[in-house]
Amino acid sequence: MMPVMTARAALSANRGRRGEIVIHEVLRATLEELARVGYRALRIEDVAARAQVNKTTIYRRWPTKLDLLRETLRTLLHQDDPTPDTGSLRGDLIAFASRMVAFLGSPNGQVFIRLMMTEGADDDLRAVADSLRDEKEAIATRLVERGRARREIRDDVDVEILLSSLVGGLHHRILVMTPSPKKVDVESHVDLILLGAAPREKMPR
Amino acid sequence: MMPVMTARAALSANRGRRGEIVIHEVLRATLEELARVGYRALRIEDVAARAQVNKTTIYRRWPTKLDLLRETLRTLLHQDDPTPDTGSLRGDLIAFASRMVAFLGSPNGQVFIRLMMTEGADDDLRAVADSLRDEKEAIATRLVERGRARREIRDDVDVEILLSSLVGGLHHRILVMTPSPKKVDVESHVDLILLGAAPREKMPR
Repeated sequence: MMPVMTARAALSANRGRRGEIVIHEVLRATLEELARVGYRALRIEDVAARAQVNKTTIYRRWPTKLDLLRETLRTLLHQDDPTPDTGSLRGDLIAFASRMVAFLGSPNGQVFIRLMMTEGADDDLRAVADSLRDEKEAIATRLVERGRARREIRDDVDVEILLSSLVGGLHHRILVMTPSPKKVDVESHVDLILLGAAPREKMPR
Repeated sequence: MMPVMTARAALSANRGRRGEIVIHEVLRATLEELARVGYRALRIEDVAARAQVNKTTIYRRWPTKLDLLRETLRTLLHQDDPTPDTGSLRGDLIAFASRMVAFLGSPNGQVFIRLMMTEGADDDLRAVADSLRDEKEAIATRLVERGRARREIRDDVDVEILLSSLVGGLHHRILVMTPSPKKVDVESHVDLILLGAAPREKMPR
């Protein structure tokens, strides 16, 4: 016998699934339009046509272009991925940084980089990028503080300096120095900085 | 008695000085136009009008808009400043990084940052910025290798990782994390990285 399900529940489950598909298609279409024309020139009607949905369907969920940008970038940047928890600060930072490097080297990452390089001065884009970055940074800060609580780094190490040296160093390496992110050795970046942050008595090698 | 100077030499010296003034005025006008309209929309006639010189005067020295961009950015980025030589790698890196931080916080630095944020994907702009960055990086690499020769860092430290962690870390701090470059403590950035790069037996503190 089939599990019991009322007609209304079945309808609502179907709607839920259909809703997810629509969200997925709209975000994918937005990303493609961002890649094609950027943010300033982005038009909701073009997104709707590409996603094969009604404009009103988009406006109902995302009242403004900025809302649509925000959710698209959230998805793009894997904003809801779980926080690394490997048991050591080194492992956590390598996991965190490896994801970032993989993203920057991916086609989606290239769209994002290009967007920031062409419209990085746009107020909306900047505000959304800043707030997503704040979220990521809060995660990374928690990793570092957890490591500090385990005495993996010294008490006097400034978490902002540590993280900017790691994140900024990898960005610089990938976006400025080395054209191929595949060549970037994440572990060596983490090790240089963690060695600089290590308690004297725990200094490796 | 006046020093001996032929009429021709005097004329030529005057011309030289007048030439320098023209160069200075044209580069200043180019920078102001870059700040106003960016690179793509830059017009030689607007630069000429602003510098109060003839268009042909500009074309004689800078045959293309790209040539004008290159020399303006060279001047802007203090490309010809002397290499730091304080006697220690720490001192040299602090001097090198402090200049960079001071530049990024200056009005000229702001023009440059804005230009890269709005037209960083432009091929010409990117090529010029890359080549100027290569020059700066070559200088920084020499500083690090000089320090390595003095045994201030380990043999196994990768100079690219060290420099990207310092330069990228400071960029990240200033352009992404902290709105005010004045609050960035250059010495702490240098110390974290140099501590990570130090020979074990020389580890400070």
